Amino acid sequence: MKEKLTVVKVGGAVVEDEAQLAQLLRDFAAIEGRKVLVHGGGRKATKIAERLGIETLMVQGRRVTDARMLEVVTMVYGGLVNKHLVACLQAHGVNALGLTGADADVIRSHRRPVRMVDGAPVDYGFVGDVDRADGTMLGRLVEAGITPVVAPLTHNGEGDILNTNADTIASEVARALAADYDVTLIFSFEKKGVLRCPDDDESVIPVITRSLFEQYRADGTISGGMLPKVENALAAVEAGVGRVIITLATAIDGRHGTVIS
Amino acid sequence: MKEKLTVVKVGGAVVEDEAQLAQLLRDFAAIEGRKVLVHGGGRKATKIAERLGIETLMVQGRRVTDARMLEVVTMVYGGLVNKHLVACLQAHGVNALGLTGADADVIRSHRRPVRMVDGAPVDYGFVGDVDRADGTMLGRLVEAGITPVVAPLTHNGEGDILNTNADTIASEVARALAADYDVTLIFSFEKKGVLRCPDDDESVIPVITRSLFEQYRADGTISGGMLPKVENALAAVEAGVGRVIITLATAIDGRHGTVIS
Repeated sequence: MKEKLTVVKVGGAVVEDEAQLAQLLRDFAAIEGRKVLVHGGGRKATKIAERLGIETLMVQGRRVTDARMLEVVTMVYGGLVNKHLVACLQAHGVNALGLTGADADVIRSHRRPVRMVDGAPVDYGFVGDVDRADGTMLGRLVEAGITPVVAPLTHNGEGDILNTNADTIASEVARALAADYDVTLIFSFEKKGVLRCPDDDESVIPVITRSLFEQYRADGTISGGMLPKVENALAAVEAGVGRVIITLATAIDGRHGTVIS
Repeated sequence: MKEKLTVVKVGGAVVEDEAQLAQLLRDFAAIEGRKVLVHGGGRKATKIAERLGIETLMVQGRRVTDARMLEVVTMVYGGLVNKHLVACLQAHGVNALGLTGADADVIRSHRRPVRMVDGAPVDYGFVGDVDRADGTMLGRLVEAGITPVVAPLTHNGEGDILNTNADTIASEVARALAADYDVTLIFSFEKKGVLRCPDDDESVIPVITRSLFEQYRADGTISGGMLPKVENALAAVEAGVGRVIITLATAIDGRHGTVIS
């Protein structure tokens, strides 16, 4: 029997809102047993960049990261947001330790090659596509009583920090830990779950399996931005993660939201 | 027989200079056995603060840290500088892991009370005076093959990050580790060591003991800013640190500089 371990991903919108964040951290602290927090921070990065006179450029929802923007996200994700979360969790009695992928070499990546997006080449700059997450090292920290708090930054092993999407980090960390733990991966966001009707916040689909997903995709129930989210969750499950839960940031107790299994 | 462990402190001036930093990191990587790096970053913090329109106020060489400056030092020390050092050390094959005092609760502090400085009360703001460093947790990380890279930030256990002088962090970390290791603490700076004649860079005093220090202080050989530096080093030795070396940032191999023992 593998030990249970919970990976929670919290996005930039919640990190920005002190009231929501306070509740999320209380709820996270209340999760029993081994756990990992993965956070975003994009909105804060955009604000700090603006104050520094650096323009934010997004292509298909992803940040183009030139050298100056890399400095900003390294400061904001690795410093400002990460250390705030760590200090708050310590105040809740959780022995948190902040990590980027460079720390203890936990997540290695390579710089994303120039890609064609809508017919035009896009150089995302210092953006990293993950090569591997080190589940053994993460497990070692967890077994030492530590709760890793992972920022959306990775490294290429050649001295460069790279910017990596927080959802991707959460999936990779959950998959890497699934070798040794019974992992529940919780994606918290601004909705109560995957909705049957986008306009009805209460129409949460309780469970989605691969076959249900194919059905929902075919009949248009799941579409747009939810497609890659659910795809990503199913891929995690198929890679050994016990279950993925998509839920409201203020309902991460594992009893709410959509379970993908 | 205790295992040897080296703690190296590198200041903000070296961190800012890519050529000097590259050499320091190569030299640090070449140090055999267990080691810890402690870094500053004050100059970079001052620059970023300036770009954000935040004025830097220093009193007796120490940064007054209001809420906005706390954000800056958290970003710069905990994010920008710390992650740059970690990623570079990883490229040198050192399994570095960046820490503030909040991470794994390694350094607890309390907010410095308002102090009288030159007859006027000074509120340093979010500045932390250290209560304790956790040598056991640091030792545990070191025994897992990790090289801690410690930023000059601590926490009060109530959710606040606090700004703490990097020399102090280095001393506290060295003392805490001295219970289990034979610790050498190396303070790297812009001179070759403690000089007999301030104008002669070659006049390095090879060894200073407590009795020699009293002599040098009485006859004026050691004065000004070197007094607290050497005092601090002697206090570390008297608290169990094997030896303290004050040396040039490009000569941290333990064979140069002034040895305080």
